[in-house]
Amino acid sequence: MKHRNILITIEYDGTDYQGWQAQRRLPCAATVQETIENVLQRVLQNKIPLIGSGRTDAGVHAKGQRAHFKAVLKLGLPQLKKALNALLPGDIRIVRIRFVPDEFHARYDAKWKLYRYTVHNAICHSVFSRRYAMHFSQPLDVDSMRKAAGLLIGRHDFRSFQASDRVARDAVRTIKRIAVKKQGALIYIDIEADGFLYNMVRNIAGTLIEIGRGKIPAASMKKILAAKDRRLAGPTAPAQGLCLIKVVYEKGTLTSSAR
Amino acid sequence: MKHRNILITIEYDGTDYQGWQAQRRLPCAATVQETIENVLQRVLQNKIPLIGSGRTDAGVHAKGQRAHFKAVLKLGLPQLKKALNALLPGDIRIVRIRFVPDEFHARYDAKWKLYRYTVHNAICHSVFSRRYAMHFSQPLDVDSMRKAAGLLIGRHDFRSFQASDRVARDAVRTIKRIAVKKQGALIYIDIEADGFLYNMVRNIAGTLIEIGRGKIPAASMKKILAAKDRRLAGPTAPAQGLCLIKVVYEKGTLTSSAR
Repeated sequence: MKHRNILITIEYDGTDYQGWQAQRRLPCAATVQETIENVLQRVLQNKIPLIGSGRTDAGVHAKGQRAHFKAVLKLGLPQLKKALNALLPGDIRIVRIRFVPDEFHARYDAKWKLYRYTVHNAICHSVFSRRYAMHFSQPLDVDSMRKAAGLLIGRHDFRSFQASDRVARDAVRTIKRIAVKKQGALIYIDIEADGFLYNMVRNIAGTLIEIGRGKIPAASMKKILAAKDRRLAGPTAPAQGLCLIKVVYEKGTLTSSAR
Repeated sequence: MKHRNILITIEYDGTDYQGWQAQRRLPCAATVQETIENVLQRVLQNKIPLIGSGRTDAGVHAKGQRAHFKAVLKLGLPQLKKALNALLPGDIRIVRIRFVPDEFHARYDAKWKLYRYTVHNAICHSVFSRRYAMHFSQPLDVDSMRKAAGLLIGRHDFRSFQASDRVARDAVRTIKRIAVKKQGALIYIDIEADGFLYNMVRNIAGTLIEIGRGKIPAASMKKILAAKDRRLAGPTAPAQGLCLIKVVYEKGTLTSSAR
């Protein structure tokens, strides 16, 4: 029987995981990737490596992480999805499953991604959003945050927003869209880009919060970006506010004319 | 110094508690009430009983539970609230605090309460709503649910929706308002009444789900109510979908002319 290439879309509550994939191995928490691999092995009776679109950190969530694996299937995709979800813990769910061409690669073929950072801006933290938002009690000026965020749109060297201990050789990325929205006590920072440096969204969020509380003027965002110096940007916002919403592929990579 | 009567409004994620107050004592989980009492004792250096507006079951949440206690205060209310929240675990929060007349009683003076039951109606459960909603995968007809719910409005003997092992002498209650709303994959059942029998909201929700999936016609709600027989109603919907949203008191009971 033939090996098929299979793409899955995954939702997870990252609270109890050390991330998609282990960066440094912690002894007591699993990774999302290995949790799914273990279930794949139980269902397909074979050790199968799962290739994600990219890593997410410990505590970071996903509504639309994507990953591919190759396997010989003796059951249909809906049955496979059902079997995997039946064995997965409640905080990980396969929400979609599909065949893709043999040459498709979940990481290399990713065209752009959408991340959302959520801030709960109220005096008291909320017990219901504490797992999914950063709590910030001082008032934030959303208009300044939006103005500053707009200055990041486009193709830039984002070195100023890169984790200082994880330096990429090429820090040029393109932010297609960045939106700051307020809904009640929640502030959403949505960033769509063709790629993200390590901690980039959390560092941008941390900087926007410094701007929102009036510590840095909105117009300084331009200077911070141009300086290519991590020390000028704000602190790294905590992991629990971050969620990988969507990973998008070029249409041609998901389907092939041969099928 | 004088004893003061203090009313607090409490938000909690009930997932990891055996309820507001222990029904039967389980060995390994705390109650919300005793968790707050322990913190009160640490802050006020005195064992102080906390009187809730009513019990909520294991796994049931609250956005607006209310409770009172009497204490001699050496610090202001904002400081007390801050101190309590600093010591409380992240899943319990005091959201408001105020003085009330000495004779005020959080349970006896409650005029009406609002409960919300949330159903996540989608093929897959969501990792983000699994702690706060009941997952139901078959399609539900919200219009029938709304029609049936409307038949419960008014003053009735709600014996048919009472836990069979916990029978109140008087099962007559008044439902002021009942609303069934759909927002995306979430269905909200809001019930406002002057009082609730044990498991009443969860039994009404369970019955409405049977109606929504077409097992019971909407018009049968009238017969089920009139029969005063628990066996005719649907199953008890699970605890995690239930949330106590609001407890309302007669205005006069919260303030007294003497102040």
